[in-house]
Amino acid sequence: MHDYLAIHPEVAEALQARKAVVALESTIISHGMPYPRNVETARLVEQTLRDGGAVPATIAVLDGRIRIGLTDDDLEHLATSKSVIKVSRRDLPVALATRADGATTVAATMICAALAEVPVFATGGIGGVHRGAESTLDISADLDELAITNVAVVCAGAKAILDLPKTVEYLETRGVPVLGYGTDELPAFYTRSSGIKLASRCDDPLTVARILRAKWQLGLKGGVVIANPIPQSAALDQGMIDGAIAQALTDADEQGISGKEVTPFLLSRMEELTGGASLEANIALVRSNAAVAASIAHAYAELNT
Amino acid sequence: MHDYLAIHPEVAEALQARKAVVALESTIISHGMPYPRNVETARLVEQTLRDGGAVPATIAVLDGRIRIGLTDDDLEHLATSKSVIKVSRRDLPVALATRADGATTVAATMICAALAEVPVFATGGIGGVHRGAESTLDISADLDELAITNVAVVCAGAKAILDLPKTVEYLETRGVPVLGYGTDELPAFYTRSSGIKLASRCDDPLTVARILRAKWQLGLKGGVVIANPIPQSAALDQGMIDGAIAQALTDADEQGISGKEVTPFLLSRMEELTGGASLEANIALVRSNAAVAASIAHAYAELNT
Amino acid sequence: MHDYLAIHPEVAEALQARKAVVALESTIISHGMPYPRNVETARLVEQTLRDGGAVPATIAVLDGRIRIGLTDDDLEHLATSKSVIKVSRRDLPVALATRADGATTVAATMICAALAEVPVFATGGIGGVHRGAESTLDISADLDELAITNVAVVCAGAKAILDLPKTVEYLETRGVPVLGYGTDELPAFYTRSSGIKLASRCDDPLTVARILRAKWQLGLKGGVVIANPIPQSAALDQGMIDGAIAQALTDADEQGISGKEVTPFLLSRMEELTGGASLEANIALVRSNAAVAASIAHAYAELNT
Ligand SMILES: [Mn+2]
Ligand SMILES: [Mn+2]
Ligand SMILES: [Mn+2]
Repeated sequence: MHDYLAIHPEVAEALQARKAVVALESTIISHGMPYPRNVETARLVEQTLRDGGAVPATIAVLDGRIRIGLTDDDLEHLATSKSVIKVSRRDLPVALATRADGATTVAATMICAALAEVPVFATGGIGGVHRGAESTLDISADLDELAITNVAVVCAGAKAILDLPKTVEYLETRGVPVLGYGTDELPAFYTRSSGIKLASRCDDPLTVARILRAKWQLGLKGGVVIANPIPQSAALDQGMIDGAIAQALTDADEQGISGKEVTPFLLSRMEELTGGASLEANIALVRSNAAVAASIAHAYAELNT
Repeated sequence: MHDYLAIHPEVAEALQARKAVVALESTIISHGMPYPRNVETARLVEQTLRDGGAVPATIAVLDGRIRIGLTDDDLEHLATSKSVIKVSRRDLPVALATRADGATTVAATMICAALAEVPVFATGGIGGVHRGAESTLDISADLDELAITNVAVVCAGAKAILDLPKTVEYLETRGVPVLGYGTDELPAFYTRSSGIKLASRCDDPLTVARILRAKWQLGLKGGVVIANPIPQSAALDQGMIDGAIAQALTDADEQGISGKEVTPFLLSRMEELTGGASLEANIALVRSNAAVAASIAHAYAELNT
Repeated sequence: MHDYLAIHPEVAEALQARKAVVALESTIISHGMPYPRNVETARLVEQTLRDGGAVPATIAVLDGRIRIGLTDDDLEHLATSKSVIKVSRRDLPVALATRADGATTVAATMICAALAEVPVFATGGIGGVHRGAESTLDISADLDELAITNVAVVCAGAKAILDLPKTVEYLETRGVPVLGYGTDELPAFYTRSSGIKLASRCDDPLTVARILRAKWQLGLKGGVVIANPIPQSAALDQGMIDGAIAQALTDADEQGISGKEVTPFLLSRMEELTGGASLEANIALVRSNAAVAASIAHAYAELNT
């Protein structure tokens, strides 16, 4: 057996007792928000899970091991260190073998959660098909991970800077269920609706849990997207956000931003362009997703006991 | 163990005795043809299989279970009910968990056939890369299923409303064998030839069976497409069918048809535009595919006894 | 058990003793170079492996079996016979079942190496996304194979006739590590640099071996690309090679070359256009890759004993 996996005792105990555990990613801490809002948000989201009766399992690569469940010091380190790399599927073995500190993307967090048998994961928004992908082929590894790794991902849809219709098509081709949570439409991250109708809608955690059970008991490998719209009170104005996205994309293009720098650049530029409103919305939606994830983790744990 | 799978006693007995069994899909019944031709065709195709010495296993989701082998009442229900949903890979766990009635697409039928260990499946045409996919990414989940699920699919190629050259490229990238059955070219559904040369040709069921055995014994996961041209006597005129496809695509575009409504809309529009000729061709080619599938299922069963 | 696999006694002994073994492909012999340079190169590359302390395992399909390790007569046969087909993933079961002689592409060689548990493979360049793939979807099955089959592929990047930026994006989406070996950039086959920055760089075989161990011990299926630039002394002039590629692509287009004929046509046309310089460069980079592969196979074998 390998020893690449280190599960925090609190998480290990909860898993052992078949209690609700929810995974959290760490790219949002190191590459998604400015300090100190990043570490404050990480703690807030962990607290939201605890308030919902679930044990938080924030995931990162530290000292050559995958850590499932972080200490407060770990969170602070991820939030402040400049040497933390962004770790997706392709980077995970490299980070482990070279003992680099790594913040896990949605794809890598799914992998690590599945290794630790944590079935539910809360995040802000998944990656997707980038705008202009017809000429660049720039498509997030998150989508392929959803096709093969057994984790339910609660999110506010894909990040709005992406091409949402193409992202939905790609997920359909790959056979990934996308469940509108209390909605018939794909949410658009900062706003509640995108105009894209989804094939399936769920209105309660038990139905989601039953779908997860059916999928995985049949041996249908892969994840499930639970698309939970941003709370009404926190949603941004559609016109304002559309303008900011257009501007941020133009800026990225003019400055030649590419590869894994694109998403962090756009999120940071959006924050400036919206006078901080996009950051507040992002925090609100992540907390809302954590609350939904806790309830689904509960329902799923109960189905299996 | 789960109890999502219900195998009809006749099918279970045939499988137990290692006799030839052929899977059939149900989307063609509920979403592919008008009543009563749909149920008549379903019965005709089952009879064609029996005449070829194989047991038919029509597949659908009913009452929260995957049914392998349907009764006559089930066929009638699928042919007439308005509440039957179209179930592809992503929809399968949702239909099971919510106890929705579902007609299975090629992708979902492959999954269910593989679960029941039925290795051969007859249909009309597989899904593929949609025309205009370079700007929409609309690619059928059937193609990804063929890359991972061990079922041989006998068809008249991909539906002609699709982009056939791109469909062949996609299958090559995914490593799916496409065997021209008695032909060097990909058939074009309503017509016998597409101008697209295939890498492999087979002229008899035993050769196909040997290829299936080699693929699966080596552990090379995924399906095989057996592309069987429509019988000469039933083939439509190329010019007529090209005009009807162009018109139907224009109509779909103008009416804003999208997602899983596209294929049913186009097939139905084609029927109107060809004065019913496309429907007759569709029925003829499905029956021809069933006859070939029965012979392959026989040869494969014999190789394994 | 099947008997599709025939491992040469020398290779079997080396594997048994956990010594370094390196796989080699055979398409380069039958479809990649003119006679007699093809067979001479095959022998030279085997000798390079031996000089590096590794046992060569050249792979092909002969007489209905996958052969791991070939005799000198086998090499001569592959180099001269006109009936040897090019075998990728989709073709492998067909070649076996029909007892066709087949030269294995990168994808098929990976499959066969994995079946024989040979973890390292040296080649010239992998396939990739073809130029113009946004309108053709012509993407090599090598890339999908890298996503699922556990073999490390030492190469000089993807063949330069391809679209290198799209190839890198595709590999990222599929989660395949691409390690610059002694470089921060993707090499461009005939030249040492492409301007495309890679996420990971390795400067020694032990680091590569540790990455392979981490990836596979975690159960992260798939290959790793070790991108080793052509030796400085053998690299071609960038302007000369760009011109030759442009001309070769134009010629292929005008002559309507398509499918699996594209790469052999382009390589052969490049040789004419460069007065043989592209062929010499190709031989030099394959030998350099073999030397690196031998050192990685050593380091990996030692990690596991
Ligand atoms: Mn990307
Ligand atoms: Mn679609
Ligand atoms: Mn191709």
